[in-house]
Formats: sequence, C-alpha cells, structure tokens
Amino acid sequence: MSETPFNQPLGGNDMPRFGGPATMMRLPAQESAQGLDAAFVGIPMDIGTSNRPGTRFGPRQIRDESRMLRPFNVATRAAPFESLQVADIGDVPINTFDLKKSVAIIERWYDALLTHDVKPLTLGGDHTIALPILRAMAKKHGPVGLVHIDAHADINEQMFGEEIAHGTPFRRAVEEGLLDCERVAQIGLRGTGYSADEFDWGRDQGFRVVPAEECWHKSLTPLMHEIRDKVGGGPVYVTFDIDSLDPAYAPGTGTVEIGGLTIPQALEIIRGLKGLDIVGCDLVEVSPPYDPHGQTAVVAANLMFEMLCVLPGVAYR
Amino acid sequence: MSETPFNQPLGGNDMPRFGGPATMMRLPAQESAQGLDAAFVGIPMDIGTSNRPGTRFGPRQIRDESRMLRPFNVATRAAPFESLQVADIGDVPINTFDLKKSVAIIERWYDALLTHDVKPLTLGGDHTIALPILRAMAKKHGPVGLVHIDAHADINEQMFGEEIAHGTPFRRAVEEGLLDCERVAQIGLRGTGYSADEFDWGRDQGFRVVPAEECWHKSLTPLMHEIRDKVGGGPVYVTFDIDSLDPAYAPGTGTVEIGGLTIPQALEIIRGLKGLDIVGCDLVEVSPPYDPHGQTAVVAANLMFEMLCVLPGVAYR
Amino acid sequence: MSETPFNQPLGGNDMPRFGGPATMMRLPAQESAQGLDAAFVGIPMDIGTSNRPGTRFGPRQIRDESRMLRPFNVATRAAPFESLQVADIGDVPINTFDLKKSVAIIERWYDALLTHDVKPLTLGGDHTIALPILRAMAKKHGPVGLVHIDAHADINEQMFGEEIAHGTPFRRAVEEGLLDCERVAQIGLRGTGYSADEFDWGRDQGFRVVPAEECWHKSLTPLMHEIRDKVGGGPVYVTFDIDSLDPAYAPGTGTVEIGGLTIPQALEIIRGLKGLDIVGCDLVEVSPPYDPHGQTAVVAANLMFEMLCVLPGVAYR
Amino acid sequence: MSETPFNQPLGGNDMPRFGGPATMMRLPAQESAQGLDAAFVGIPMDIGTSNRPGTRFGPRQIRDESRMLRPFNVATRAAPFESLQVADIGDVPINTFDLKKSVAIIERWYDALLTHDVKPLTLGGDHTIALPILRAMAKKHGPVGLVHIDAHADINEQMFGEEIAHGTPFRRAVEEGLLDCERVAQIGLRGTGYSADEFDWGRDQGFRVVPAEECWHKSLTPLMHEIRDKVGGGPVYVTFDIDSLDPAYAPGTGTVEIGGLTIPQALEIIRGLKGLDIVGCDLVEVSPPYDPHGQTAVVAANLMFEMLCVLPGVAYR
Amino acid sequence: MSETPFNQPLGGNDMPRFGGPATMMRLPAQESAQGLDAAFVGIPMDIGTSNRPGTRFGPRQIRDESRMLRPFNVATRAAPFESLQVADIGDVPINTFDLKKSVAIIERWYDALLTHDVKPLTLGGDHTIALPILRAMAKKHGPVGLVHIDAHADINEQMFGEEIAHGTPFRRAVEEGLLDCERVAQIGLRGTGYSADEFDWGRDQGFRVVPAEECWHKSLTPLMHEIRDKVGGGPVYVTFDIDSLDPAYAPGTGTVEIGGLTIPQALEIIRGLKGLDIVGCDLVEVSPPYDPHGQTAVVAANLMFEMLCVLPGVAYR
Amino acid sequence: MSETPFNQPLGGNDMPRFGGPATMMRLPAQESAQGLDAAFVGIPMDIGTSNRPGTRFGPRQIRDESRMLRPFNVATRAAPFESLQVADIGDVPINTFDLKKSVAIIERWYDALLTHDVKPLTLGGDHTIALPILRAMAKKHGPVGLVHIDAHADINEQMFGEEIAHGTPFRRAVEEGLLDCERVAQIGLRGTGYSADEFDWGRDQGFRVVPAEECWHKSLTPLMHEIRDKVGGGPVYVTFDIDSLDPAYAPGTGTVEIGGLTIPQALEIIRGLKGLDIVGCDLVEVSPPYDPHGQTAVVAANLMFEMLCVLPGVAYR
Repeated sequence: MSETPFNQPLGGNDMPRFGGPATMMRLPAQESAQGLDAAFVGIPMDIGTSNRPGTRFGPRQIRDESRMLRPFNVATRAAPFESLQVADIGDVPINTFDLKKSVAIIERWYDALLTHDVKPLTLGGDHTIALPILRAMAKKHGPVGLVHIDAHADINEQMFGEEIAHGTPFRRAVEEGLLDCERVAQIGLRGTGYSADEFDWGRDQGFRVVPAEECWHKSLTPLMHEIRDKVGGGPVYVTFDIDSLDPAYAPGTGTVEIGGLTIPQALEIIRGLKGLDIVGCDLVEVSPPYDPHGQTAVVAANLMFEMLCVLPGVAYR
Repeated sequence: MSETPFNQPLGGNDMPRFGGPATMMRLPAQESAQGLDAAFVGIPMDIGTSNRPGTRFGPRQIRDESRMLRPFNVATRAAPFESLQVADIGDVPINTFDLKKSVAIIERWYDALLTHDVKPLTLGGDHTIALPILRAMAKKHGPVGLVHIDAHADINEQMFGEEIAHGTPFRRAVEEGLLDCERVAQIGLRGTGYSADEFDWGRDQGFRVVPAEECWHKSLTPLMHEIRDKVGGGPVYVTFDIDSLDPAYAPGTGTVEIGGLTIPQALEIIRGLKGLDIVGCDLVEVSPPYDPHGQTAVVAANLMFEMLCVLPGVAYR
Repeated sequence: MSETPFNQPLGGNDMPRFGGPATMMRLPAQESAQGLDAAFVGIPMDIGTSNRPGTRFGPRQIRDESRMLRPFNVATRAAPFESLQVADIGDVPINTFDLKKSVAIIERWYDALLTHDVKPLTLGGDHTIALPILRAMAKKHGPVGLVHIDAHADINEQMFGEEIAHGTPFRRAVEEGLLDCERVAQIGLRGTGYSADEFDWGRDQGFRVVPAEECWHKSLTPLMHEIRDKVGGGPVYVTFDIDSLDPAYAPGTGTVEIGGLTIPQALEIIRGLKGLDIVGCDLVEVSPPYDPHGQTAVVAANLMFEMLCVLPGVAYR
Repeated sequence: MSETPFNQPLGGNDMPRFGGPATMMRLPAQESAQGLDAAFVGIPMDIGTSNRPGTRFGPRQIRDESRMLRPFNVATRAAPFESLQVADIGDVPINTFDLKKSVAIIERWYDALLTHDVKPLTLGGDHTIALPILRAMAKKHGPVGLVHIDAHADINEQMFGEEIAHGTPFRRAVEEGLLDCERVAQIGLRGTGYSADEFDWGRDQGFRVVPAEECWHKSLTPLMHEIRDKVGGGPVYVTFDIDSLDPAYAPGTGTVEIGGLTIPQALEIIRGLKGLDIVGCDLVEVSPPYDPHGQTAVVAANLMFEMLCVLPGVAYR
Repeated sequence: MSETPFNQPLGGNDMPRFGGPATMMRLPAQESAQGLDAAFVGIPMDIGTSNRPGTRFGPRQIRDESRMLRPFNVATRAAPFESLQVADIGDVPINTFDLKKSVAIIERWYDALLTHDVKPLTLGGDHTIALPILRAMAKKHGPVGLVHIDAHADINEQMFGEEIAHGTPFRRAVEEGLLDCERVAQIGLRGTGYSADEFDWGRDQGFRVVPAEECWHKSLTPLMHEIRDKVGGGPVYVTFDIDSLDPAYAPGTGTVEIGGLTIPQALEIIRGLKGLDIVGCDLVEVSPPYDPHGQTAVVAANLMFEMLCVLPGVAYR
Repeated sequence: MSETPFNQPLGGNDMPRFGGPATMMRLPAQESAQGLDAAFVGIPMDIGTSNRPGTRFGPRQIRDESRMLRPFNVATRAAPFESLQVADIGDVPINTFDLKKSVAIIERWYDALLTHDVKPLTLGGDHTIALPILRAMAKKHGPVGLVHIDAHADINEQMFGEEIAHGTPFRRAVEEGLLDCERVAQIGLRGTGYSADEFDWGRDQGFRVVPAEECWHKSLTPLMHEIRDKVGGGPVYVTFDIDSLDPAYAPGTGTVEIGGLTIPQALEIIRGLKGLDIVGCDLVEVSPPYDPHGQTAVVAANLMFEMLCVLPGVAYR
C-alpha cells in the first residue's frame, strides 16, 4: 500500500471487507510481541461471569467485526499506523475448567509479554482478567493509575465465597498494592446493590467515583479534564467494561444495567485520555451469543481503535 | 440472609443468578396478598393489542430477567425490603379467548386483592388491563390521580368499533369517573394519528400532556416538579407503557413509535414520583417474542424495582 | 373512509394493522405516476455495498413495517393526504447481476418517472442509487441542492478500482455537474478513514460538512436554520442514509459507524427542511437480514413519512 | 411473459425475486373473486391461540416468502397457471378484539366468496378459522369430507370454558353437521393430552386417525391410497396445520409438539390428494415472530403451491 | 382439578399456558424431596463446557418451555400423575466460579436427596454433572447400569490437563467403580476425534457402543430390545445429552455434531426403557443463548416428561 | 504436538476451542499453496445470488465454526493430517462491484493455484464460482467428471438476460467443454421451475440426474455405488451446494427449497466418493446473515472435512 515500515491494516481496496484474515483490523498476525509498540491480545474467558456467560467468544467476534476499520481517525486526525508497529498476537491459552489456574496463566503470559517494550490492548473476556494483567503491570511499572469505565465497581469482597471472579478484581488489586489509589477513577457506576453505599469503599481508597447519573444528558469532555488531572503523573492502565454503555448500544454483555453511558460519551472519555502515560488497555465483557449480528462487537472494535489512537507516541495528521 | 422480618430477594451468594425460582426478583411466591405491603402481580394478556402481539409472555420474561436485581437502590439509597413486606403473588387467570370477559376477571381479581392493604405492582400484559385495575382502584380510593407514561394517549373512542382495547382505557376511565382529571399527566406522547389534534382531548379534560418533543435533549427532573404538583393531593396510580421509551431501549413491544424517552429520563420520571401517595403501579406492553434475549424485560424489571422504591413507606439509607 | 379526492392509507379500523396490502403505508398501488403528486418507489438493490449486503430487501421490509403509520403528523400537524395525491408505484426492476447496468436502468426509469409532475420518495437499496436518480433530477431541474444525511461522505474516487459503488455517488455527481455545490450539506459524517482529511474534499467543493461530533448532546434545530439558508434558493434533493443514525437506533444496515445521530435529531433535521423546494427524497441502506424484526425499517418508514410531510404543498392542520 | 389468458406469477427475469408486489407468488391482486378458479385469501388472526401468538402475521410472511416460487411443479409436472385463473384477493378484515365476532365475519366473508365458483386457498391465521370456513363450505356443498393434517385433533369440548378457540373447530364442525364424518382423516396427531384416550373421540365419529407414530421412518404414499379411498366420493376440504410438521422444519408456530411429520411426508400427503374433489384448502398456524427469517413461511408457501397443484382441473405437462 | 392425592400440573383451563409458575410442567414447587416419588431438579451450570457455554440457563428455559405439557402421554397411555407424587424441588446452588467445588456441592446435594425414596429427574447443566450424581447413586445403589444417549462418549482421560470437565464424566465413573460396565450402553456417538479409535475404550470396558451411523434411516425399537437386555438386571441410570440429537432438532447446545438422532428415534429410545429399574435420569447440555425462542428446550421438556413416563410404578391407562 | 511433518489443526488441549486463529480447522495460514497437498481457499462473494444475499460472509463463518473439528474421522477412520500437507491459504480478492470481473479474477487465481500440485477445497461464496474454478480445472486436467449436489440444476440459459449468475454455471461449463458430460451426476434436485421439464436438459447431455424425491426415506449408499461407476475413470470435481440439504439442517442459505437431503444422506454421498480421482471440491451458498449462530456453517465445516477425508492419498487408521 505504501513504503511505510509499519504494519498496515489490510485495506478494502486490496481485499473486500468481508474477506481476509479475521485478525484485529486485519493486521498481520505474529506469535510474539517482538518488535511491536502495541499488540492486540485476546483472552477468551467467561468462567468468571456471574450472570450470562459468553465472553469467551468476545475476542473472536471483536476481531471479526473490526474488519471495517480504516487506518485513520478522521475526528481526531490520529494516524497510529504511521508511528507505531502494531500486530495481533493471538490469544492467551486459558484453562476454561479452572478459573484460578487461568488467572495464573494470564499473569505469567503478561509477565512474558511485558519483557518486550509493548503496550497490550487486550480483548476480553470477562473482567476477572484485569487482576492478572494488573499484577504483571505493577511488577513492571509499580502501582499504576487506573481509568475504569464500567457499570459496576467490581470491588466485591467475595462472590459466592470466592475471592476471584469478575466482580472482585479491583478489590484484590487494591489489597495487593497494584494501584496508586489516588490516581484511580471509576466512571459510569450504577445499578442495584447489596447495600446502599457500596460505591463508597472506592471513595474511601481515594478513587474518583463518577456514577452514571453524574453523566446523564451532557458531554463528558469537561469531566475528562478533571480525570486527566486525577490520574496523570505516572503510568496509567485503562480498563473499559462494555457494560458501562447503556444496553441499547451494547446489548451483547452479561450483567446488564440500564441507564448507562452513550457512545458519544464513551468516545469523549477515551479521546480525553490523550496525553496520559498509558501502559495498557483492555475492553472486556463482550458476549457474542447475546448479540449474534455483532453490534456490540462493532462498538468494541471501534473503542479499541480509539484506545490505540491515544497511546503515547501516536502521530497526528 | 439476615434476621429481618421482611422477605428478601434470593441473593446471588446463595444461589447463582441463573438459578433459583423465576419469581419477580427471586422473591418468595405466595398465593394471596395477605400480610403484604406490596405485591408483584402478572397479567399475561395480549388480546387487546392492535399491531404486534406477545405481551401475554411479558410477566414471565420480566420475572426471568429480574434475576439480577439486588435489594438496594444505590442511586437513591432506597431500601424497600427493609420496610415493606413484598412478594410475588402470581398471575391473574385471564380468559385469552375473550377480551371482555378478561377485563371482568381482572376487575374482580383486583377487587379481591384490594380488600388487603396492599399496593399492586402489575406486570403486563397489554394496556387494556389499566381499565379494570382503575375500576378496582376507584372503588377503593375514589377517582385517582394518574401518571401515565406512554407513546400513545390511549384515549380512542373506539378501535375497530370496540370500546375495549389497548388504545381506549383512559377514554373509558374518564367516562366512568375513575380519574381525577385535574390530577392526570401523560408523558411521552408522539407518533402519527388519525387526526392532527388527537392529544387535545386529554388537555380538554384537564390533563397535563407532555409530548415526547418536549422531553428531547434534556433532564426531566424539572418537569417532575411540575408533575408532582399537578397530580399530588390524593391517591395516584402510575401506569408505565414500555413503548414510551425509544425503541432503541425497548425493542420488545408491539406498537412502536420512534423518538421516545431515554432510560435516564424514565428513571428521572419514576424517581421524581417520590413523595406522592402512590396506590399502585403497572408496567405494560413488554412483548418477549420481539426481544427474545430480554433487553426490554431487563429494562422493565428495573423500572418496576424503581417504582417499588418510591412507594410510600420505603426506607432510605 | 371520507369523500376526499386523495388516496388515503388503509386505516386500522377498516383492516387490522397486520393485514391488508404490504404497500407503503397501505396506500393504493398503481403502476405509473400518472396523476400523482408524490410517489413511493422501491429500488431493491445491494450489489453496490462494500461490507454487509441485504439492502435488496429494504423496500419490502420498509413497506411491511409502515403498516402502523396513520395519516396525520401530530407533532407538526402536517396532513399530507389532505392535499397531495400519493401512491406506491412499486419497484424498479434492477439487474442484480450487473451494477453498471442497474445504474443505467434506474436512470432511465427516473427519466420516465419525471415526465410526470411527481416527487419521488425512494426506498433503497444501497446508496449507489443516488447517482442515477440525481442524473435524472439534474436533467429536469438542472444542478440541484442536496441535503445528505449520512455517516459517510460517499465521495470516494474509486472503490476497488470501480467508479460506481455505494461509496462514490457524490464524487460522481460533482464531476458530472449534477449538484449546485454551494447548496450542498452533509450531516452526520464520522468514522475511520483512508486519510485523516477525507471529509475536506467536500468542503473544497463548497459543501457544508457537519461531522457527527458537531451534533452530539444537543438539538439540531439551530443547525437546520443554517442548513436551510445554505441549500435554499433552488430545487433540493434529500438523501437520507439510515447509517447516519447511531446503530442503537438502526442496527439493520451494512456499514455501521458508532457515535451517530439520535432519532430526535433525525426528526429535527427532516422537520427542519420544511419550506425548501424539495424535488425528491430517498432513504437508503436498510438491510433487513441484520434486523429481522424490523426496528430499523420502522424507523425508515417513519422518516419517509416525515419527508412526505415537508414536501411543498402539504396541508397543515 | 406469454399470451396465456391466465394470470402468471411475476417472473424472476422480469423483476428480481426480492422486489415486486408482496402478493402470494407475486400474482396479481384483485378485490373480489370474480372470474377466478382459485383464490389466495389471508386471515390475519391469532386471538384463538392458546400458547404462543403471532399467527396474525402469517399471511403477510407467507406471501413475502412465496416470492421464489416459479410456476411449474417439476416433481409432479403440474402447471396450474396453464389451466386455472388464480389471484390474490387479500385479507379478511377480522375484528382482532373479539374472537366470536371474527368468526362471524369470516363466515359471512366466505359465504360471499362462495357465491363465485372459486376454490379458496386460505393463509392463516390460527386454526379457529377452519370453523367459519367449514360453515360456509357446508352451506354450499353440504357436509364435506376433510383431510386434516395436524399435531392436534382440535376436538376439545371447550377451552377455558369457551366453545370457540383454536383447539375446538372440528368438535364444533361435527356437532353442527358440517362434516361427512365417514370421509374424515386426521394425520400426524401426537403429544401430551388431558386424557390418555383423547384421540378416540374422532375415531368414534368415524374418522381415520393417523397418529404421528404411525408415520415415522417411512413414505406416506401407501397411506395416501387408503386416505383417498376414505375421503373420496364427495367434496373434500383440506386443512393443513403447520404444526403437523416436526418443529425442526417449521419452528415458527405456536403449540409445538415434537416428533412430527417430515417435509417429504407432507409433500407425499398433499401430492397424494390428487384426484379428489377438493373444494378448498387452508394452511394455518404460521407464527412469524418465532421464525423471523421465514423458514416456516417458505415451507408454508411451498405447501400452498402444492395444494394449488392438486386442485381439480390443473393441467399436467 | 380432581380429588387425586397426587400433585397435578397446572392445567390450561385454570391458567393460560403463558401464565402460572415457571416450574417444571407448572407443578407445585417444594424445597425438599419429602414425600415425593419423583422430583425435577435443576443444576444451572456451564463451567464444564469446552466450546459454547450457556447451559447454566438450561433449567430455567426447560421449565419455561414445559408449560404446554399436559398430564397424559397419549402415545403410550402413561399417566404418571395418577400414581406418582411429583414436584419441582428447585436448583442446586453450584459455585459458578469453581468447577471442582461445584462437583462436590452436587454430590453432597444428591447424597441428601437420596436419603429420600425419590427418583431425581435432573435438568442440566453441562454433562459434568453426571459424575457427582453417579457418585451419589452408587453410594445408594452400588454400581449402576447406564443408558447414555449422546453425540460424544465423554470418556476423555483429561481435557486441558483437567480430570473434571464435561468430556470426562464416564471415564471417571468407570475408574471410580460407579458403573456396572457390562450394563452400559452409549447411543448416538459420532463426530471427529483426537484418534480414529476413540470409541473403542468404552467397548473395552464392556459397553455397548452404538454409533450414530448404526441408527440412520430406521426405527430404533429393535435396538432397544437389545439395550434392555444389555442394561437390565439391576438399577439403571439414564443420561440424555441433547446433542445426541441432530442439531436440526436441538440447535441450542454447545458441542454440536452433525448427523445425529431424530426425534422419533429419541422417543423410541426413551419409550424403549420401560420396564427397567430406572433410579434416576438427567437431560443435559441445553444452551438457551443459542436457541432463544426455546425449540431445544421444548424438546428437552418433552423428553423429560417421557422419562418420567417410564419410571417404575407409573400407571398406564 | 507431535513430530509429524504435516500441519495439524490446533488442538483443544493447547488452546480452548473458542480461541486461536479463525482459520479453517485452526490450521496454519500461508499465502501460497507451495508445498501443500490440499488447501482451503475462501471466495467471499454473493453478487451472483438471485434471492437472499450473504454468502460473501460464508468463508468467514465456516472457518469460525470449524473450530470444533478434531483431526480424525472416527466413523471412517480417515486420518487426513497423517498423510497430507494441508493449510488455509486465505481468500480470493474478488471485485464485489462487478460479477464478470470477479469471475475473471477467480479464474486467474485458480490458474496460478493449480501450477502447484494441490487440491483446492473452496469455501463459497455463491455458486457462480464453480464456473471459473472449472475453467482452471479443465485447463489443467481436461474435461472433468462432476459430482454436483444441489437443490437446483444451475443450468439456466440466462438469468435476467445475463449469462453469468449463480443459476448458470453448469450450462456454461457444458458449452465451454469443461465437463466430461458422461461423467456428471446431479443429486438432490427439486423445487418449482420455469418449465415442467427443466431437469431434462442435463439428462440430454448425459448427466445422471437424481431428484430429491428419489432420495427420500432411505440410505444413499446404494446410489453412490452407481454414482462412482458413472463419474469414475478420470479426474472428478465435487461441488456441494448447501441448499441440497433440507433447510431444517441448513437454514443459512439463499434460495431455499423444501424437501431436501438429510445430513446422513449428505455424509453417505461424500463418504461414497472415496476412491475417485478427486481433483478439487467446493462447498457453496452458506449465507451467515440468515443463520447468525452458525448451525449451517457447522454443517458446512464438517462436510468440508469429510471431503478432505476422501481425497486421494488420505491415510486410514
């Protein structure tokens, strides 16, 4: 397509959009992160879910539905493939019959990945995966700042007596010292709870907690100025649970809460992260069986592209 | 779960969300309203519908999809199960082969129900059911105020020559003196009509009519101050037709009109009812065949929980 | 139904909504445009699509789902069937095995149609159809103004080396002198691109380009004042790609872009066209296989009715 | 297409299969049966159903999915459009809010229809419609023979205390003397019952009852020799409930019973009716909401074409 | 309904089929097995699955879709509710975050259940559940005979290094001495494998292995004579994996293999078990997300009713 | 996995079935056919279809749903990966805006492919693709024998005046001398036609034509003895249109005809080809939008594996 030294998504004028490899953005696949600045990784897991399953197929469907993505972000003029080497490095081979072993597998896998100077963009999978990723991140970077977009705080002490599940990762992360709690923001929280004050635990740790009600009917661009101030000053990890969105935009997920973010707000949030020292991102909880035509996965693929566009070092045209 | 004297929803730490009884919120089932402050009731009926059918399955799907609801409203701090005795008392055995007989069955059933000091929260069913419920309400309370959230005014003189159908209940209710017309509000009206002025009949009765266009692009919290002033000062019945919402949020319904309310607006409406003397509520027109994965029913289940939370006597934490 | 000289949609009190002919709004069908002021026409074509197909079934599903539409626009008080003679004149017999021949067939078909003094309201079909329609329009009216609501500018030089495809019609229209470029507006553009500046070509021609981001979180009524000023002063053609809407509202389409217009905005846009000298309208890119229950087609049918309501000469009550 | 005096289905070389009018087989529509030998009629009704609704949309979907049907039956060499005048005469305007009134409307409608020398091929609609059709048939022809293909005998004394419902028409027909009971066959019966002997009532009337189990694993061509002998010797009405088929072939129906007929068996049954004095046919219980892509309707459309092919007077090539 | 001492399914003349409790066959619910001859039990689990998940919702959907079942088996004249006390005793509270703990929970739960003289009819859930059930069965009855209908032998040594998963229960059962291997039959096996001889291990244990190919195109009634001889002479457990059926009949399952059993064959198999000393049954692997309208669950509900009908002690009329 | 020199499908014990590359059978991808004995190729095309589109997504969905396939055929003991080098070589870059150019692209692509000594197993795509493949085959092998399994003969003279479409390839192939007509068999033909004798043209060329009716209710193993005799004695190409199957087994296709083959029959047909000198195979007309959960694609993936298993040189264990 051009003589750029960087991998390019396979273009629609070279292969129809409905053909070509089912990798993320139809980028080249490679097995290791060697030589990459950013890498798309899948974690096909759903055994940490508490209501509807299906996120095990999230990575496959997000990749499939990423086929329409062209290389430039026309709204922000980001040109990630002009300054970063990016590829799809496949899936983490989790053990679907044992959640605790899977968490260990993921942690080891990211430990190995992070021996490279690469930023992982992870396609989930249920939100349990954030814990082992954060463990690996903290080993490399020390406690990280966190931008956590979600309907749920995911700070349960336990679920059904278990410490590891998709509703507990950030409680564990705090306990294990993986987070720089003064640089943590949670955006989009809402829904019913086991107590009336359950979002307060995060506040007590120093988190900025933004319930969904605070977001209704308006642009979140002003909020993002505050969030950048809150979480900046060190490495930041971004974790985006698709259920932060209202289910009208993302029906394919498992623990649905009504009254969520809109797509424009989601884009404002991600675009508002530009300038932070982002060390990794994930997008979790896409459940294809509940959205077989892939509307949710289209959203997810676009949001992952937007996350790529705000990584440090991306060129803007 | 605790030593509360009140029924509690079966919790997700006692039984996975995808198991347990398919009652509303996984509450205990009982056959009569004896001893209850509030009761969930189903009316599995769709023979009053004029376009798509399927609301006969509404109660079953709303109950099924209510399984994620936890006992506390984190946004409003309502704790209904700390001060009210609530149960699911099953379905009204309508005669699906005869609409007029069904209306009579429903009226008798609510007459009997209202011999108890209980507030019914009814899961529809098509909107025809509002007429017999209001008849029973008026027998007990006299003419009631009404908050009617809907895409349609449901004030047709007749449909296909019939006086009883899902587009006529509030015309009949006015004619029969069931409503205190100065304390009636209709919110969300829109769509095409058989005349250009068809929402004016309600205004002529004294109703506050809020077309959808008046709601676009903004919070309805200010509107609800006005509505509370309008409908307060006596017993109020709340009837929520799911088609008041834009079909993006609630595709599973039968007489779809575009340009409707958003979920945040629906929540603002219901939360804005707090303080009124609510004597009963219903949520109607959920049609599962048109939304088999239950997105609409999830919305409905949440809205019913929000209605429970604004009943008189609910504790707030 | 009444003694009006104008065709009326078959009413729900004469035939249930789920019966009757599957014509647009259950209007009478006729083979030619003889005697009509406005005519609904279908172009069942999808061979110009570059991602998902299926728009070949758009006309059938839009007609089917138009069955709920009643004759009056309650919001605007438009009464199109009191002053215009309207009918459904069926489909253009395209050659589904040859895109270029189909474009020629359509052009000839509209040439013939426009020998009558009729305004076509076209049900697509993919957006390729805009080119032959505009050719016919320009032969009759000279270069026309254009209001183009879409996620995409559709101004590609080529697609896969081809000059004719659903992403190229407005580039061709400019080159062929079919448009009065100073009277062209494009609303809702967004998404990824093959370059960061790809919406600028239109601006260079004199178009008013309104990206989706400019529309977020607000009413478009003020914008429409500007647009009317921009495009007025001569004949105007209106082309509405359903993918201008956010996919939450219109999932049944082929080249989905997130972050689009809302339904209230779409209604404000169309209602804001009142007073222009509209010479024809189309609504394209509805793909039924991706929305089998027809939510998207319901939206499309309503938007076509709204377009009918702003044609010159419509009565208002 | 040719100079035949008979109506022809609109061919795929004149208009793509996905375009053209949504009439049965894309035949011409006309309002009365004047001049016709056979007429397709729709009865859009589902208020007689006892489990899933939706058959109100049966006629629309069967017509839509009949678009692929070409004029010749290659297997049997039947050429119905070379010897019969056939058209689609639209729908019966039932009153969807009153089942008993609808039954009366249908009876009057068929009384009027049968003043013409035409054979109706009726698209249901739920099976309740068989009763008023048989009433009209018996008025014209006297008691008729009946070939009834169904999972259910539909001979209930009452349903929920009602005499009119989709499970009672043949009990009523016997009581009213509409059937020549010695010339009645029921094929495909199965499923659970309110008693172990509930198919015996029909046998007691003289019916030949063929349970599904008698059909398994074999051709029904031999059975049809017997059936022709049984029901011949006078006018015969054919009523085909799509739920006679195994739900694998026809999922879009309301009262599903497993273990039903296969499609080859259904074709053998209908083809095996050739030579009988058939005076009318129906195909009932297609429920589109449960099969939105229309597999069931495709089956139904083909079976209706096969019924047309065995009407008296059809040419064979 | 009558003065029988036995629980009866709630009838359709007392409550419409689409209303009433969502218990199995709308039978009464009770918490323990006290006083029951047979009990429907749900195990809402899918964390043992290796391809598609979703069987966690199996019990809920099977119960929901059992609503059409009437009390008598017309084909076999079985009248189970005239001689057995049957109820729905709810779900086993598995730990969805830990497969091994769930297996232990199930085993303890069935140990407790089997202190009663009751035959469990278990609604799965994935096939892993057969292991703990068989452990409890063997404690009570000693090694049991087994009729295992399935596409897969489920005799893997390990899956992903794990001993417990849905592909291993019968290997474990043999190793643990839970089965009387000379009284074991596996029916319907097929599909691709990790070796060409993988069904031979069962044969080496003494199993009668009936591959699907042996079943094609014919009645299985003769086979069942052989199977009864093979497995009789002691207590027999029946385990029916819905994927034994061809996916045309049961699309809602997770590890689909083409070329499976037909419904008539499934009915012949179950009806052919009559006379055996059946001590329990299960039906597993129904995955609702892959069949949201519930065709598979309808099949499952019917097959469970047929299993109930062949339990020892059932009356025949 | 082992020290075999042959590519192996990625196993479920190395990567969960729902992860790993979305290649056919999770085999390695490579760009050319260099070194391969057999190659899976996709042709993502649907612009030759005359009714429903969507086969452009066939290759993607078949690959996705092939993920469950294990390396051995347990029924036939075929072990293709023990003697053949097999890979997935990606898609042919057709021009989706021009059918005639696409046919030329495919022909050139297969010309290049066949410079290698490789057998292509092609994933369609609509049936138009058979023509350019046969052109390339005939250049290499001379006129080939053909086993054509299909509901349609695909021997139209023209469609809508066009010589190239999915209903014409075998007419063109005969005209161009690509087939050894005495070694051609067509199996499964049925449906309505434009004349009563339209299958006779093939017979006139020397084809063995087996209509579906000849296949009903029985094993096709005897037929395949005859077919092997008919088509043997030279190179044979196999083309399998998924619509040869009854739509109950394969709903995801575009020109549906009822009364088709069963899966056991399809397997008997393919297994019955063993011993022939097969030079290539295709499986066409899988349309994912009409079967989003992929039942049809699972069937297709299995049938392609079975075709691989009967290629010359496959080892049997």
